[in-house]
Amino acid sequence: MVKSRKTAPAKEQEIIAAAASLFKKKGYRATTLEDIAAAVGMLKGSLYYYIRSKEELLYLVVRDPIRQAYNKLEEIVNSDAPVTAKITQAIANHVVVFHQHYPHIAVYLHDFHNVMQKLQDNSIETPKEYRQLLAQLLQRGVDSGELRSDLDVTVASYAILGMCNWMYRWYKPEGHMSAEAIADVFTKLVLEGLQQST
Amino acid sequence: MVKSRKTAPAKEQEIIAAAASLFKKKGYRATTLEDIAAAVGMLKGSLYYYIRSKEELLYLVVRDPIRQAYNKLEEIVNSDAPVTAKITQAIANHVVVFHQHYPHIAVYLHDFHNVMQKLQDNSIETPKEYRQLLAQLLQRGVDSGELRSDLDVTVASYAILGMCNWMYRWYKPEGHMSAEAIADVFTKLVLEGLQQST
Repeated sequence: MVKSRKTAPAKEQEIIAAAASLFKKKGYRATTLEDIAAAVGMLKGSLYYYIRSKEELLYLVVRDPIRQAYNKLEEIVNSDAPVTAKITQAIANHVVVFHQHYPHIAVYLHDFHNVMQKLQDNSIETPKEYRQLLAQLLQRGVDSGELRSDLDVTVASYAILGMCNWMYRWYKPEGHMSAEAIADVFTKLVLEGLQQST
Repeated sequence: MVKSRKTAPAKEQEIIAAAASLFKKKGYRATTLEDIAAAVGMLKGSLYYYIRSKEELLYLVVRDPIRQAYNKLEEIVNSDAPVTAKITQAIANHVVVFHQHYPHIAVYLHDFHNVMQKLQDNSIETPKEYRQLLAQLLQRGVDSGELRSDLDVTVASYAILGMCNWMYRWYKPEGHMSAEAIADVFTKLVLEGLQQST
């Protein structure tokens, strides 16, 4: 039922937002459907009109942000810009999607193992495919001479993702530093390193 | 009882190792004391001779690796080496402790919120203090001119920790790449960046 609609109606969106917030705060496993129903002023029984299970709700919480992040990264990787510009855009995309979809992405990063099967069943890109796309981009940079020739693109792709993903532990959407400013610090670190050039 | 001993006896070590492995595999919340007792061939009742609760067991799983990582980082930061050498050592320390204490550190990184209070009660350094130590090191590098003067040391410290900590999602201790080799890739990325120098 849910999957056939393009955009979920208002009540469903409210349920998804409440679930994202509770999953982030209490953890996915510790959150019950009763908690979620209470947060939107419903009884658990009425919730079943909108969603079938907590598992489905987790999927609905993470699906759109993941799709958006992956599709945009694919677009960046396949564009004509120089590799260094693409890396800059890729990091900005990752951090900005994180900000726009907070706490949804935080829930995904902590509890992705609970939703992986459902993502695969629905042909949604997994973290593995996302990382491979990033590694592909780095490899093109090595091939073109823009990046260091000795670069281990697999480990470097994990390093960049780790840097960005770890934000889910410390980033406050209402904090004094914007997502864009954080992306700038990350990008300069990744491209130029911390060392003062001599 | 447990805390007064310097080194836990063999059976206790076995229980702690089994708990670390199960917490990593099934998740802390999903693992029961029955699971842990079964893994070491005991009844749950006998387990209580060694530990008081699952919470205490989580604490015992993470305590020593955290202490080791923090104490070593403190030693590095307070040594007389140049800041770039200290950053190299700090990243190597982090990655190598991760390897030596796998899966204990992975459990800590995923479930630290379940053990934070007990760490504080026992004066064990928290992730916040670890990160502040790293930020302090970066600040000294900025002050001495070894690191870029425009560096945001707070975000950079989160970036480096994120890169290292995220390993808990992808690192395989039995994998083809050693912890030392991964630390080298991270360090070069952090100090010099990915870009080919012109």
